[in-house]
Amino acid sequence: MKDIKVIAVDADDTLWDNQSYYDRAGDVFSETLLEYGQADWLQDRLFETEIANMPLLGYGAKSVCISMMETAMEVSGGKVSAAKLDHILKSAKSLLEIPATPLPGVAETLEELRKSGRYRLVLFTKGDLLDQRNKIGRSGLAQFFDDTVIVCDKGRKEYLDLCSSEGITPEQLLMIGNSFKSDIRPVVELGGSGIHIPFHTMWKHEEAEEFDSPDIVRLDKFSDVARVLLKS
Amino acid sequence: MKDIKVIAVDADDTLWDNQSYYDRAGDVFSETLLEYGQADWLQDRLFETEIANMPLLGYGAKSVCISMMETAMEVSGGKVSAAKLDHILKSAKSLLEIPATPLPGVAETLEELRKSGRYRLVLFTKGDLLDQRNKIGRSGLAQFFDDTVIVCDKGRKEYLDLCSSEGITPEQLLMIGNSFKSDIRPVVELGGSGIHIPFHTMWKHEEAEEFDSPDIVRLDKFSDVARVLLKS
Repeated sequence: MKDIKVIAVDADDTLWDNQSYYDRAGDVFSETLLEYGQADWLQDRLFETEIANMPLLGYGAKSVCISMMETAMEVSGGKVSAAKLDHILKSAKSLLEIPATPLPGVAETLEELRKSGRYRLVLFTKGDLLDQRNKIGRSGLAQFFDDTVIVCDKGRKEYLDLCSSEGITPEQLLMIGNSFKSDIRPVVELGGSGIHIPFHTMWKHEEAEEFDSPDIVRLDKFSDVARVLLKS
Repeated sequence: MKDIKVIAVDADDTLWDNQSYYDRAGDVFSETLLEYGQADWLQDRLFETEIANMPLLGYGAKSVCISMMETAMEVSGGKVSAAKLDHILKSAKSLLEIPATPLPGVAETLEELRKSGRYRLVLFTKGDLLDQRNKIGRSGLAQFFDDTVIVCDKGRKEYLDLCSSEGITPEQLLMIGNSFKSDIRPVVELGGSGIHIPFHTMWKHEEAEEFDSPDIVRLDKFSDVARVLLKS
């Protein structure tokens, strides 16, 4: 590993389970609308709506609520009942209250990294400002971070902005996260390093072709991070 | 005025018209649901839903979309048609595409402030991260600001964070905005200064008792700002 000064850490599906709740809300959506099409087809329509809405709505649970309402009206030709819409909306809105319980070993590992005093730790996440802040609050993990940065999307520009506000070069940045597309690829392309910890489920939108690099370490679980970073 | 180093400027209803579009979407909401109650009563129900949703949804157009859907289902006892919901949703979603055309004199005044080189200029707004960024982009005003900060809410804590990240004391901060509650009161309470420029319409949630102070200047229009700040 290079001479790392700042460790940025992704939140959803890296520090706590998020996607499996979204998967379940997607199942509620398609189960509720089965009279209008098969589950896979309904979920494909929803995905299309979400992608079309992305420039205006961005990521997050509120956007899912709106895209689900729109798709339900569309696939039903405007015939879906208010009761069904209400059922779907309640399920999607509950995504704003997921527990954000830290995954096994996460709190201990962050504490160890912090105690080492060797790195600045920044929580770096994309999505809805308030929802992400609320999840961070519920997780109890904010205490381990020097800073929290929430952005609309995580691409090269946002990582360069992060380096700039931290006063480091991209070579001094290490990003830890589950999404190769958002957490690893842009950082490594800029000259930084990544620790990739895939989660057992991932939103289709985050799928990306992966590549090997001496600047990427792939781990099975977050608790392995301390072994990699603090071994020397 | 004190020795101001940083001027923070509110966005919605200070730099461009926002609220009158929200008012119109509120009218579409109540006109569409007139069979379930009178306009004022419907809008009061909507306001209640918005306030109840605030801790989870926060401010902004996406939150309005969701609160309108929920209120429509509630006031109709689950009987509202998908066509009416669709009509309301389309109207609320269009709030994500308001033009954000700068109000008269705004661009010229910002340019004059910037050219004076006497202050750092920060766009300081609350709401939805992506929606606010998109509006700033459409307004063409980003070029006049040294930084843009988007927060969930604008209270004392957020102004203290702003001072801290700008490396100034609250006494060195001047905030310009239309909302006494969000733009003026917290800043003046911290020892800073405010230029209050009321807009012709305001969301009920922003209503607040106002007070006089030597640290508050009240102006009719944004173009008067240069006269106040650059006169000496």
